[in-house]
Amino acid sequence: MSSERLIYMPLGGAGEIGMNAYVYGYGKPDQERLILVDLGVTFPDMDTTPGVDLILPDITWLKERRDRLEAIFITHAHEDHVGAVGHFWESLGAPIHARAFTANIARRKMEEHGHSEQTVKTASAWPEQIAAGPFKVGFLPVSHSIPESSALVIDCPEGRLIHTGDFKLDETPVVGEAFDRALWEEVAKDGVKALVCDSTNVFSRHPGRSESTVGPEIEKLVAGARGMVVATTFASNVARVKTLAEAGERAGRSIVLLGRAMRRMIEAAVETGVLKGFPSVISPEDAGSVPRENLMLLVTGSQGERRAASAQLARGKYQGLTMKEGDLFLFSSKTIPGNEKGVIRIINQFSEMGVDVVDDSDGLYHVSGHANRPDLEMMHAVTRPQIVVPMHGEHRHLREHVKLAEASGRKGVLAVNGMMIDLSGNSPTVAEYVETGRTYVDGTVQIGALDGVVRDRIRMALNGHVIVTVILDENDDPLGDPWCEIMGLPEEGRSRVPLVDVLEEELGQFLGRAGDKTLTDDDKLEEGLRRVARQAAQNEIGKKPEVTVVVSRLS
Amino acid sequence: MSSERLIYMPLGGAGEIGMNAYVYGYGKPDQERLILVDLGVTFPDMDTTPGVDLILPDITWLKERRDRLEAIFITHAHEDHVGAVGHFWESLGAPIHARAFTANIARRKMEEHGHSEQTVKTASAWPEQIAAGPFKVGFLPVSHSIPESSALVIDCPEGRLIHTGDFKLDETPVVGEAFDRALWEEVAKDGVKALVCDSTNVFSRHPGRSESTVGPEIEKLVAGARGMVVATTFASNVARVKTLAEAGERAGRSIVLLGRAMRRMIEAAVETGVLKGFPSVISPEDAGSVPRENLMLLVTGSQGERRAASAQLARGKYQGLTMKEGDLFLFSSKTIPGNEKGVIRIINQFSEMGVDVVDDSDGLYHVSGHANRPDLEMMHAVTRPQIVVPMHGEHRHLREHVKLAEASGRKGVLAVNGMMIDLSGNSPTVAEYVETGRTYVDGTVQIGALDGVVRDRIRMALNGHVIVTVILDENDDPLGDPWCEIMGLPEEGRSRVPLVDVLEEELGQFLGRAGDKTLTDDDKLEEGLRRVARQAAQNEIGKKPEVTVVVSRLS
Repeated sequence: MSSERLIYMPLGGAGEIGMNAYVYGYGKPDQERLILVDLGVTFPDMDTTPGVDLILPDITWLKERRDRLEAIFITHAHEDHVGAVGHFWESLGAPIHARAFTANIARRKMEEHGHSEQTVKTASAWPEQIAAGPFKVGFLPVSHSIPESSALVIDCPEGRLIHTGDFKLDETPVVGEAFDRALWEEVAKDGVKALVCDSTNVFSRHPGRSESTVGPEIEKLVAGARGMVVATTFASNVARVKTLAEAGERAGRSIVLLGRAMRRMIEAAVETGVLKGFPSVISPEDAGSVPRENLMLLVTGSQGERRAASAQLARGKYQGLTMKEGDLFLFSSKTIPGNEKGVIRIINQFSEMGVDVVDDSDGLYHVSGHANRPDLEMMHAVTRPQIVVPMHGEHRHLREHVKLAEASGRKGVLAVNGMMIDLSGNSPTVAEYVETGRTYVDGTVQIGALDGVVRDRIRMALNGHVIVTVILDENDDPLGDPWCEIMGLPEEGRSRVPLVDVLEEELGQFLGRAGDKTLTDDDKLEEGLRRVARQAAQNEIGKKPEVTVVVSRLS
Repeated sequence: MSSERLIYMPLGGAGEIGMNAYVYGYGKPDQERLILVDLGVTFPDMDTTPGVDLILPDITWLKERRDRLEAIFITHAHEDHVGAVGHFWESLGAPIHARAFTANIARRKMEEHGHSEQTVKTASAWPEQIAAGPFKVGFLPVSHSIPESSALVIDCPEGRLIHTGDFKLDETPVVGEAFDRALWEEVAKDGVKALVCDSTNVFSRHPGRSESTVGPEIEKLVAGARGMVVATTFASNVARVKTLAEAGERAGRSIVLLGRAMRRMIEAAVETGVLKGFPSVISPEDAGSVPRENLMLLVTGSQGERRAASAQLARGKYQGLTMKEGDLFLFSSKTIPGNEKGVIRIINQFSEMGVDVVDDSDGLYHVSGHANRPDLEMMHAVTRPQIVVPMHGEHRHLREHVKLAEASGRKGVLAVNGMMIDLSGNSPTVAEYVETGRTYVDGTVQIGALDGVVRDRIRMALNGHVIVTVILDENDDPLGDPWCEIMGLPEEGRSRVPLVDVLEEELGQFLGRAGDKTLTDDDKLEEGLRRVARQAAQNEIGKKPEVTVVVSRLS
């Protein structure tokens, strides 16, 4: 066990979609020099994480080994790959490498957290390689739904690895680099030890479609519109935003960008030179003086986010602009599972205004940024790896991707978050299981997923909250009656008198019966009052609330 | 205005999917004799109705006019059409009419609420008609995803109406009556004043498929399975349950029904004679002694419901049965928007066990129970109504359905919940807007949607809850320091000392500074303490919690 080994370990992104963070290491066991690929976030929801602002991977393992971390590499600028750099950089301290557009976005995040922009280094595309301890890492361009996405070519003494990042095989991507099959074959020609590969679309059976296929359809739609046209897509899909803007321009419409992310992304793409020839835009204020049939708004909020421009337009107005009967709203996007209700709410609000809504249900106005099943097979065939390690996917995606690799005679490795895989030698093995998980950004605080904070919020939301106050005098005798407040509970139940009266009555009786043993012991007293309050509520309203007991002693 | 009129008013189901309740009336204005069609529920979710058990339509308008209500007619036994009969019967008091299978289910609900089963009358199919004041109502069989669904033929002095209920045009429905086009044409031949018509699938462009098309595919799948096969679908889809069971039987497997709803529905279908020749089933206990490759379980929980059989199997075991590697799980169902995350969670849990999951993504193992766009056109053509009134759908569905009707030259009326439409004469008009809404069943209590109870729960879930306790002595002087308890908030924030200490410090300072004017006035004191607690929390943890202040006065 004293010889060098090559390890791979996901800390996020393997067993889920989002929150990508992958560690590679090379060296003697427990002394490996490490690199980190991507450092993303995922998003909270009311079901499981109410009140939480953002979800980060739990990278405690890596923080404890920061002296062994050589560098961080970011494949592309989507939030689930770059979103956590600002939150974690202080506790990792390694340089961050990314290509120009990604670096531009990463620097904005560093700045927001008060870190120096200098820590983000702009990398060139392959064949340049960056030395990081025992590794040499190159950014190999690949197509995706954001500019300058790159796979990483990771060389080490055990051989060459390719970490695809998120990708699709698009030879006409509208903005940015086309998938260059010949270049990839060249990179792979001397053998690839492992392909660590995007898995999100492994269940999509048809070959992926090119970004360029949506342009003509969008153009037709916009050309035929009578009123104002409003379109939404992910702001980071710069190619799509360009396609939409050009369709508007050709139809003689002035373009307005609405929403902070929309303006930021286009700004970053122009600054870094990845976006050229974008139609000129006018401000929301100037739009007021343009006839609505000559306007096209490109707005944030394709996922129905309540505070984004699309939802605000659906509720009334955004920056002085309103929609009305005869206007057209286009979702040039797919709804991510879990966001359906928010999106449907917006569609119905527009329907009430008489706005026609067009979405992608016919598959005309959106294409995915990820490789579908046949594209994954193509990627396996182009790189001919000894091992396929599926990453970025839920368990079902990773498992299916392993099966797909094995179906063409390759070795597949199912590694989820926290599984450290030893890739040395001929047969990959699990070297260790490391504890991983999630960290919540809640307001300005980071809290552990298991701290109980969110669990208590969910309980209050499901069960309501009763607050019981009792005052005891110097002799441990109750001073007056117990006092109840309720929050999130019905005012009255079965007996048609106020619920608090019913509870106070029962609690008073309990106190009257309680002996010194109970009255002198805070824990016993609280436990008793809680039990009585819950049981009384159960009888009265048919549910057992959360109960907080406050015992005040005047002694 | 003293002459008779015919009115139609949805109290639920028009502007939403679920919670159907439609009023028809005939007579002099405000003296119309009324009938109610369907009385359904809809289901809560964590986003908007945490802790709520069930959602009912707010039928206050109808309750206040119960003396004018002649009868209630239930089109079919789905929860969103029959689910509220038990909750509301007492305050309506009219007889309930339904065909045998539906009546069987309705009686079980009446019994659960302690009402007499006698109030539910079993109706025969068309041409029998039931007199209800000025109306004569007949149950016209139609196909849907539950046995004995019926449209209602509603005759009154203004002419004939057809209320479709939920339906599809299935000529080979496996269980129950086929759509009988000739019969429908016969019913419509003397003219139909208005077709009040299901709208849920108006955006589905292809003609609906027959229930009989899924049988061969399911049979192929089950025949090829190696381990245990488990399949889920809506229990009320008796035809599908039969198809699944027969596929299992043909593959030499013993059938087990798991989940209360599954057993109840099959029981009701057998009792009422709509289901014949269902394969014999064995108990979960007996299944233990059957080799797993000879077992097929039919289970509840197609929507990922946490307490249903499928979710319990995914977490471990249900009634002693467990799944393992090599088993097959089939979702013979569609995921209703909003339920995606629950379903995906189950799929991933099965994936971790090595269970293969098959769903309907290829369209092989499920068909919808509703009429698609071309089927709606067919229905319009068969019944040739003067007016089409779309019902059962969100606003977008109703609006699209109106457009569809108008495209073939018919009059379409967009009526949402609370819009009373006067259907008399040649041109329908809006007679009145009535306040409608939702009522929540919460534990054993019914609460109004606007009572603030659920709003407070959501606020506690998003913001956490701080409880501040202050005791004032006989002279209105604070007795000791204020006391804080927190729930759903981080233990500490920016200053790395307990949050409660920070809050208590700030609250103590406020109390120290407070003059008599504040200390003697409960409202002022509470308001001040709340403001200080919120601001201190904002500084410390970056969020403003809900605050409950308890002021105890010893005077």
